[in-house]
Amino acid sequence: MLNLHAVPLAIPENANIILGQSHFIKTVEDLYEAMVNSAPGIKFGVAFSEASGPCLIRHDGTDEELRTAAVDIAKAVGSGHFFAIVMKDAFPVNVLKAVQATYEVCNIFCATANPVQVIVAESEQGRGVLGIIDGSSPQGVETDEDAETRKGFLRMIGYKR
Amino acid sequence: MLNLHAVPLAIPENANIILGQSHFIKTVEDLYEAMVNSAPGIKFGVAFSEASGPCLIRHDGTDEELRTAAVDIAKAVGSGHFFAIVMKDAFPVNVLKAVQATYEVCNIFCATANPVQVIVAESEQGRGVLGIIDGSSPQGVETDEDAETRKGFLRMIGYKR
Amino acid sequence: MLNLHAVPLAIPENANIILGQSHFIKTVEDLYEAMVNSAPGIKFGVAFSEASGPCLIRHDGTDEELRTAAVDIAKAVGSGHFFAIVMKDAFPVNVLKAVQATYEVCNIFCATANPVQVIVAESEQGRGVLGIIDGSSPQGVETDEDAETRKGFLRMIGYKR
Amino acid sequence: MLNLHAVPLAIPENANIILGQSHFIKTVEDLYEAMVNSAPGIKFGVAFSEASGPCLIRHDGTDEELRTAAVDIAKAVGSGHFFAIVMKDAFPVNVLKAVQATYEVCNIFCATANPVQVIVAESEQGRGVLGIIDGSSPQGVETDEDAETRKGFLRMIGYKR
Amino acid sequence: MLNLHAVPLAIPENANIILGQSHFIKTVEDLYEAMVNSAPGIKFGVAFSEASGPCLIRHDGTDEELRTAAVDIAKAVGSGHFFAIVMKDAFPVNVLKAVQATYEVCNIFCATANPVQVIVAESEQGRGVLGIIDGSSPQGVETDEDAETRKGFLRMIGYKR
Amino acid sequence: MLNLHAVPLAIPENANIILGQSHFIKTVEDLYEAMVNSAPGIKFGVAFSEASGPCLIRHDGTDEELRTAAVDIAKAVGSGHFFAIVMKDAFPVNVLKAVQATYEVCNIFCATANPVQVIVAESEQGRGVLGIIDGSSPQGVETDEDAETRKGFLRMIGYKR
Repeated sequence: MLNLHAVPLAIPENANIILGQSHFIKTVEDLYEAMVNSAPGIKFGVAFSEASGPCLIRHDGTDEELRTAAVDIAKAVGSGHFFAIVMKDAFPVNVLKAVQATYEVCNIFCATANPVQVIVAESEQGRGVLGIIDGSSPQGVETDEDAETRKGFLRMIGYKR
Repeated sequence: MLNLHAVPLAIPENANIILGQSHFIKTVEDLYEAMVNSAPGIKFGVAFSEASGPCLIRHDGTDEELRTAAVDIAKAVGSGHFFAIVMKDAFPVNVLKAVQATYEVCNIFCATANPVQVIVAESEQGRGVLGIIDGSSPQGVETDEDAETRKGFLRMIGYKR
Repeated sequence: MLNLHAVPLAIPENANIILGQSHFIKTVEDLYEAMVNSAPGIKFGVAFSEASGPCLIRHDGTDEELRTAAVDIAKAVGSGHFFAIVMKDAFPVNVLKAVQATYEVCNIFCATANPVQVIVAESEQGRGVLGIIDGSSPQGVETDEDAETRKGFLRMIGYKR
Repeated sequence: MLNLHAVPLAIPENANIILGQSHFIKTVEDLYEAMVNSAPGIKFGVAFSEASGPCLIRHDGTDEELRTAAVDIAKAVGSGHFFAIVMKDAFPVNVLKAVQATYEVCNIFCATANPVQVIVAESEQGRGVLGIIDGSSPQGVETDEDAETRKGFLRMIGYKR
Repeated sequence: MLNLHAVPLAIPENANIILGQSHFIKTVEDLYEAMVNSAPGIKFGVAFSEASGPCLIRHDGTDEELRTAAVDIAKAVGSGHFFAIVMKDAFPVNVLKAVQATYEVCNIFCATANPVQVIVAESEQGRGVLGIIDGSSPQGVETDEDAETRKGFLRMIGYKR
Repeated sequence: MLNLHAVPLAIPENANIILGQSHFIKTVEDLYEAMVNSAPGIKFGVAFSEASGPCLIRHDGTDEELRTAAVDIAKAVGSGHFFAIVMKDAFPVNVLKAVQATYEVCNIFCATANPVQVIVAESEQGRGVLGIIDGSSPQGVETDEDAETRKGFLRMIGYKR
């Protein structure tokens, strides 16, 4: 038996999510620390699906709503060693390299504020993430004028010089 | 609805590609910089599929043919927040760690000069990469003699001592 | 043609595995070095599926049983540029960041001691890994008491203070 | 001729500094980007002492007072390829790994909010940093009770669990 | 006033040391975790000189003798924000990249089992490390035959192939 | 006894150097590999001063002139566990992060094409690097016009967009 599901995620308004694969229950504490070290006063929740023994969704965070949202994502996906971070008042670029540097983290599936569908495979044994549909498909190719607008926008918000 | 497609990619002769998942339109400028910092005079194109708003394939590079090739890959795959790099006169080992260190980059699907099929899931929402068929399947297990040949080859081309 | 398979892996008792995507036959020597630099006296085997030319499963290691186990995983998966590490007397947290820092490594699918099914896509061209079912699906959400138990356990085994 | 100087630095109130060695005038833009990618709304100035050609102190930032403070530190130290970051509303732990990952950065001398004296060697050619006196010398060894206080403090401010 | 001292260190037999510059008292817990994540059953002590407030030498570890040795090094050097790691049954190559990846770590002065003299500057304010005399000065240049011996030795102990 | 020396280095025309502190004779092979992985066809020499046993200057490279230049720098500095890289046809930004990621590397003193004086401490035991005078001291502070020139130059040579 091998079934595929497209699991749509509920992302709180103005929040971003980071989804990934990790291992070992220490993931929860180590991701908590990666987040608090990355930006002062950051608001987030993290959930990690233990994949053996009691098989609990382990969780932590600095904000109850975001912590619940992370747990809800882990429940909806239902895949062993999967983790979800839901964050506000900061952006994935602020934390992504620290998340990836965490000892237990294997892989990042996506970092996004877009609507997301997680493609999950299900067998008798359990479930696993195959991939992510992150936002919408491309509608066209940028022109020189579009590129100027992009560059101007990144400079206006202060990310590039 | 959830359909799977095997999308074959056209790779320019003597080129290598790197395919991955990222986020945020700043990806294009930051990958451009990762590439030019990695090897002097490197020839490449990079394309990134914006997944919200205008949903344009954003692109940059130092070579028009490779830039077009990267855009064509992004079009064929059609997945949000996907990026493609097509490069010549340098190899993925020269640039891969810099690409992965880029602030926005989540994941690398493959780095290769082989024929590639990208396995894409498609729903009403959009498309997402599930995985890559990279070259051919293994045909056998190396013998001690094969291993000697491998080691000799890597030393002959100067990669190992 | 595109078929999906759930390939169950045989993991030696008390061993952990790390599965990933890489490129270039130098992977075998470089992963060997990443492992021996990570923990003194570490026991492991590594196998990498060359995806062009002779298409051999290249392999190395410090323990014959684990080396054979790694080759057997690469055979069972049958995907180009896939690698498998099987290790004992050390844990994935001891080596994972060094494995990811290896020049050729693109992606880590999982690091685990759990039963694993690898979801593989197969076309006329070859095979590719789409994802991993790693252990069991979550059975519940940890309570405050479960969290205390988790924290106490990690401190008892000396990983956290 | 080789003279040693102990150069005391003026650090704005509630600010932290990071001092280091880099090369190439691109340092200024790249450190600017490392900072703005590390924490949203971060306030900082960065100065870098070009060591050939016009030998100007190159500078950038998001706050005029901190930018001036960084330039003043670069002036006081007077060493080629030296850089200074002065930051507020965020802490060195939020940015240090991104600063070190910047392409041009060789070395970090210190990250601190303490009074600092920079030990500078001066020859006919120019000046170079030998080291840093960062805050005060240790006055004693922590007892078990001091260690409990330390651990409790780090948990109270949310950095550890 | 600026005096220079050459402080000789006492290193326990068969131990290696790593000396560096860091900041923030969280260094002690984070270096402890970097060490225990790097090699199973590793024996070590770590000491860090707090440079403000109570100015205590903070310390931790998995072995009392090595912990005392690390504290003794921090006392002898007497420099703010300096740290010392003393380790056995593992080697600096097993842990160095994890130590450098620790959020608070600025710089590594040396990693060695050789006799060491730490060159310390002392002012009215305090003390700072300028550099390290690590073992003996070079006595000659390796010949082709010496190089063959070196390569053979590294392969005999299993570090290279 | 503690004497300080300002050791001027001879750098071949059009070459760049990277100077640092490392440990363990494996440094030579690992730095060789870091260099050849960083840019195709790179020309360089590397020298490392073994600090115990035979105390030989170990060396390797892809160009005899640059290899000799690296050995000559190691001789002139005469400090244990010091290494020198001399490179042409590529720039330090192309290789610096790979050099720093090498298992044995502790610290980078400088990366430069400028005239360099190495400040060396000498005791009865041996010699150690305290710091570097890299090029000339700053002569002024850049104006808005200078900053525009800097930004224009970096964009003209293709490093920034």
